[in-house]
This record gives sequence, structure tokens and C-alpha cells, in this order.
Amino acid sequence: MDNFDFLSSTKIIFGKGTENLVGEHVKRYARKILFHYGGGSIKRTGLYDRVMRSLEDHGIEVVELGNVQPNPRLGLVREGIDLCRREGITFILAVGGGSVIDSAKAIGVGVPYSGDVWDFYAGKAEPKETLPVGVVLTIAAAGSEASKSSVITNEEGWLKRGINYDVIRPAFAIMNPELTFTLPPYQTACGIADIMAHIMERYFSPTPDIELMDRLCEATLKAVINNAYRVMDNPEDYSARAQIMRAGTIAHNDLLSTGRIGDWASHQIEHEISAIYDLAHGAGLAIVLPAWMKYVYKQNVSRFAQFAHRVWDVNVNFEDLEASAWAGIQRLEHFFRDIGLPIRLSHAAIGPDRLEEMADKCRMPNGDSVGQLMKLNRKDVLEIYRLAL
Amino acid sequence: MDNFDFLSSTKIIFGKGTENLVGEHVKRYARKILFHYGGGSIKRTGLYDRVMRSLEDHGIEVVELGNVQPNPRLGLVREGIDLCRREGITFILAVGGGSVIDSAKAIGVGVPYSGDVWDFYAGKAEPKETLPVGVVLTIAAAGSEASKSSVITNEEGWLKRGINYDVIRPAFAIMNPELTFTLPPYQTACGIADIMAHIMERYFSPTPDIELMDRLCEATLKAVINNAYRVMDNPEDYSARAQIMRAGTIAHNDLLSTGRIGDWASHQIEHEISAIYDLAHGAGLAIVLPAWMKYVYKQNVSRFAQFAHRVWDVNVNFEDLEASAWAGIQRLEHFFRDIGLPIRLSHAAIGPDRLEEMADKCRMPNGDSVGQLMKLNRKDVLEIYRLAL
Repeated sequence: MDNFDFLSSTKIIFGKGTENLVGEHVKRYARKILFHYGGGSIKRTGLYDRVMRSLEDHGIEVVELGNVQPNPRLGLVREGIDLCRREGITFILAVGGGSVIDSAKAIGVGVPYSGDVWDFYAGKAEPKETLPVGVVLTIAAAGSEASKSSVITNEEGWLKRGINYDVIRPAFAIMNPELTFTLPPYQTACGIADIMAHIMERYFSPTPDIELMDRLCEATLKAVINNAYRVMDNPEDYSARAQIMRAGTIAHNDLLSTGRIGDWASHQIEHEISAIYDLAHGAGLAIVLPAWMKYVYKQNVSRFAQFAHRVWDVNVNFEDLEASAWAGIQRLEHFFRDIGLPIRLSHAAIGPDRLEEMADKCRMPNGDSVGQLMKLNRKDVLEIYRLAL
Repeated sequence: MDNFDFLSSTKIIFGKGTENLVGEHVKRYARKILFHYGGGSIKRTGLYDRVMRSLEDHGIEVVELGNVQPNPRLGLVREGIDLCRREGITFILAVGGGSVIDSAKAIGVGVPYSGDVWDFYAGKAEPKETLPVGVVLTIAAAGSEASKSSVITNEEGWLKRGINYDVIRPAFAIMNPELTFTLPPYQTACGIADIMAHIMERYFSPTPDIELMDRLCEATLKAVINNAYRVMDNPEDYSARAQIMRAGTIAHNDLLSTGRIGDWASHQIEHEISAIYDLAHGAGLAIVLPAWMKYVYKQNVSRFAQFAHRVWDVNVNFEDLEASAWAGIQRLEHFFRDIGLPIRLSHAAIGPDRLEEMADKCRMPNGDSVGQLMKLNRKDVLEIYRLAL
């Protein structure tokens, strides 16, 4: 087990009606805030009104910035930074899913920084401080509500880049599973794929001999899978929605990777797809993950056989571990297809014409190859894109 | 799933050599501290010297208070409170296991409180503030390094009582698994039983339908069991020691009970034994838990069958779930015996003469019956003590 420091510093406020407590939590931080959100859905569902009422009840002055898009853009982040500086704002409330939260985090680190916020995403500078960010979560997916990650797309060159720093973990996250009842099945499924990807990126680690973390990952995956079927069957199944929402946080707050490194190649490979095609991140992951697995599983057959057995109840053939490992990858594909996700680029109407371009761009901000279980160079990545066609 | 708030606010600093970083972490909080510890073992192992050196290197003034005993006493806590007040101390460093940390937490809440610190343990007052407490952990067991619990024994009447408040979570916990290499097998086994008990108290919950928490509990239990055998075989197996130490924190920082209530009867029942007989808490739990299970399992046979199957790999007989449930309890007993623990009061040379007295005292501070899966009155508790003979 590697040495590590760990503190998931986000306070979780979980359950029915908790969005009505937002004013009480915000007022511990500020009297004037930026209310950051996406499209109109929070207005249609009445969430916007409930949040505003709670903020008003606690005498909090609100400046609004909506219109965050999926794969949130640098342009809006810069606008938010200017707005906060101009208005003397010291707290950001993100009401929405991962895109809104990631955008809020970017604004948060951008405000006190004298340079350009993209410096952080380009790996040219490290954020040392941030405006505190609070969250009212509406989608179980990205885990951004308690993670140290933020991913932003730079419209100039359609570069999608992420940062990972403890300083950007939100101060609190209000999570009412009922807010996810109205999510369309496709978005629900994309969220589930994203949650599972966060676990699998940590599970397929080259660090040996951490049964505890393996089993915690497997436990979370199994619970997500079983509750995914329940949610697909009944979108208003509170308990199933709640478990998926809770799993989404655990999947990405780094608990499951304490003491070992993750792989993260699939995320990098997917980012290049959704940066160009604006595909939902979860759908992109459902396409990339199986292709990545097929390309790398021989690097550690026993780990993939363990995944097949413990997560998918594959009956292991100990005389042919490779076949058992392969069966696990197939089960994952079947599952993604079952919940309505694309598992090939062609299912998302993406052809082979820009694979080379994506493979060119797919690397770490410092230029390194992607992945840890297997380090993938341009040729490897291109092969994985081809396997995903 | 029940609504909940959750923040495990203790920063974990985990791995080889981390005790040498203690000065760096302490200096963020104070320049003058109470160094709280137990017997002489930290001096024999050289840990005392390494910690002192790191504190000195960072210019931290140290006032010492040693001699914390297992089942830590109120008398020493009061002494610590006086000492901190007299010396103007604003931070407590606990170097040791659960007893030292629990004692430090009690001193921490006692210093700023105008009344008697026992008020908190007697349920007469709630602590609102504390001196920050830092930990260098030497035993994987109580989970006190990141928990909101502290258990103190009042010599007057030998009352052993606990408190649970978020405010008493330590600020940081330094955890080097190597520090546990020298623990004798019996103490190691007691720690393992304590860790498992913390998980099982949360697992045998009356709150239905939280597969995610069930599976996380089962995952942690399985990893503890498998690594327990490794540690018993080779006390210097770093990876096994590390996994047990990490599991000890996860078992008791409340992650595994988010969204549901725990049972906690076994802890209450055990407290009355170790308060009188000064038996190691973990050994007492190894005796009480199977007896408690035998008494209550018919309240929820399917949960106990699930425990048997998922944790102990018992082949479930679906035509006789009770037999499967019973088999799980037996496996737990076998395991405790395997690692050298007593599983009957008689194995710890405790006879039947004070069972009535213990049953009289066994209740919540407010006088309520103990337990949640089944609420246990005096007669039930007495029956469990008899089953444990």
C-alpha cells in the first residue's frame, strides 16, 4: 500500500427536503453569493424557487449566472470570474450536476488568481486558494459534489482538460435523491456509467495487494448495478435513487483509491471524444471502457478475472483465466446496453474519420502517455478508438 | 434510507515514516501542547523519541501526561483538564491507541467547559467545543483516531460510558502500520474483534434496503478477516497490517452507517463486563457478539443468512434460512477462536456471580433499553450474559 494523505472535506447533507436547508448552510460562509446553474430544468421543476426562497429567508444576496452547458466551457468560467470580482462575491452556490459544479470550481479558483484560470488546466500553475463552493446536486454522476476534480473545455482548440486539487473540494453538498426522479432514462444511465467508471479507474490499479480497496470497489459496483436496474424499472424508487446518489460520491471522493494509484486512461481517451462530438461523458465512457479493457486485460489477467467473478458473478474457469476475464468485459458491455447506453462509437453516430486527430491530442497535460495499468502511447490509443468503432 | 449529515473531518496521514511528520502537522494548531500517552511501550519502541524530535524540530513546547490505562479513567481526564488550564495549553497530541485517544478527547471537551466533564458522559450536557486533538496511532482497533466517540470509565461506581459528537473528531491522525508490528498477538486479535464489532454494529441495522451500505460493510469485514490470518502468521506483514489499520478507521468513522441507524447493544453489554473485570474491550466483544447474535437472529433471519453467505461464504440453504443464519454465527465464533480470543466468559475466567449486577447497569445514559435490531430490556441482557457463560 502506498503512503497517502486523505481528507474528503465536503460535508454531505443527504435526504428528502434537504434543498430547503441551503440558506442555513450558505449563511455560514457569505452574505452575497453567485448562484450558478445550467439550463432551465431547475426552473421547470421548482427547485430554483425553493433554493431562492431558502436563500432569501436567510437574507442572502444573490447574483445569478446560468447557462452552464454539458462539457462546461472556459468562456462562461471567465465570465463568472469577472462577475464575482465586479460584484465582490465570496461564495459560489452550484445548483446542478457535474458540469455546473466543475464550472463553479473553476470560477472559485480563478477569482483569487492573478493569471488566467486556464493556466491551472494547462498544468502551468497550481491553485492555492479558492472561493468556497457549495452544491445542491441534481444528477448522480460526476461525483464532483465532493471530489477534488474539475474538467473544463477550452473552446479554442476544443481542449477538454481536468485538474485535481484538494483545495477545490466543495464546502458542502446538499443531496436529495428525489431531485433525480425526473431525469430522463438516458441521462440516468449516463450518470451510472460515469459512477462505475470512477470506481473502475481506481480498481484497475497497478498497485498490488490491497484487498480492502478492491472489495470496497466491488461492493460499490455491485450496489450500483443492482440499483440501476431498479431505477430503470421505476425512476421514482427513492431507495434505489438514494443508493446510486450516495455511490456517486463515494466513487469519486478518493476513498476508494487511498493507498494506490488509479489508471484514468479511459477518462483521457473519452475526453477527446466528448470534446469534439459533445457526447455525454457517461455515454462516451460506456463506449471507451470495454474497448480499453479488451486492449489491456492481458496486462493483468487475474485482476480482470477477479472483476468478472466478484462484480459480475462469472463462474471462473481456473484453467482459462483469460476466458473468465473476457467474460467479465462482456458482462459490462451487456449491462451498459441493458440500461440503454451506446457501447460502440457507431451507436453514437461517430465514424472513423477523426480518430487520428483524437489520438494525437490524447495525452496528459505535461505530454506524458495516459494510463497506469498500461502506459498507452499514441498508437495504443488509436487502436483502442478502433476497437470502439 | 434515512436522511443524514456526514463529514469525517479527520485528515488521515497514512504510511511508513509518517510519525516523523507530526511536528509539521501540530504546528498548524499550536506552539504549546499536551503530549498524552499510555504506558512505557512508546518509549521502548523509540516512538516517543521520534515524536519528541519532530515536535522539537518545529519549536513546539511539550507538557507530558502519560499513564493512560486501558478503559481510560475519569480521574486522569480531570488531571489532564487541570493541567491544560494551568499551562495554557491549546492542543492535545494523543500518541497511542483508543484509550489514549478517548482520554485526549475527554480532556479536549473538558477544558473549555465550565462544569464537570462527566456531565457529557452522563448525558447531562452536550459538548459544543473542544481543544483540537491530533493522533499518532499505535493500535488498529478502536477507530477513535477518526471517530466521534469517546468512552471513559468513572472509577466511582465503575461506570463505563461513551459520547458521540462530531465536535470531538480528531483534527488529524498519523497512521504508520509499522508501529503495530510489535503488538502482541492477543492485542492484535482484540483490535481485530473491535474493528469487526464496529462494522457489525452498523450492519445489523433495522433500517431496510441499503444494499450499498451492506456491501461496504461486508467488503470491509472480508478484508479484515483475510488479513487477520496473514497478520497472525506474520506480524510484520506490512500490507496486511496496513489494510487492518485502514479498515479500523473506516469501520468507525460512520461512513458505513450513513443513512441508517446501528444496533450497538453488544457494545453496551460488553461495557458492563470490561468496566468490572477490566477485560480488553475486543476480547469482551468476541464473547458478547456471538451470544447477542444467538439471542436476536430470529428477529431478522434473512439479514443473518446474508451475513453468513456474503461474509463467511456459507452455502445458503434456502429451505432453512435459520440454519444458514446459525452457521454464520458459528463461523464468527470459529474465527475469533482461530485468532486466539476468548468466546465465552469462562474462557476469560469470568463466572456467573455478577451477571445480575451487570444487567442492572446495562442501559443507555437516559435509561432506555439497549439495541435497535431488537430492543433489549434487563431480562434480555441477562439472558445474553448467560448465553455467553
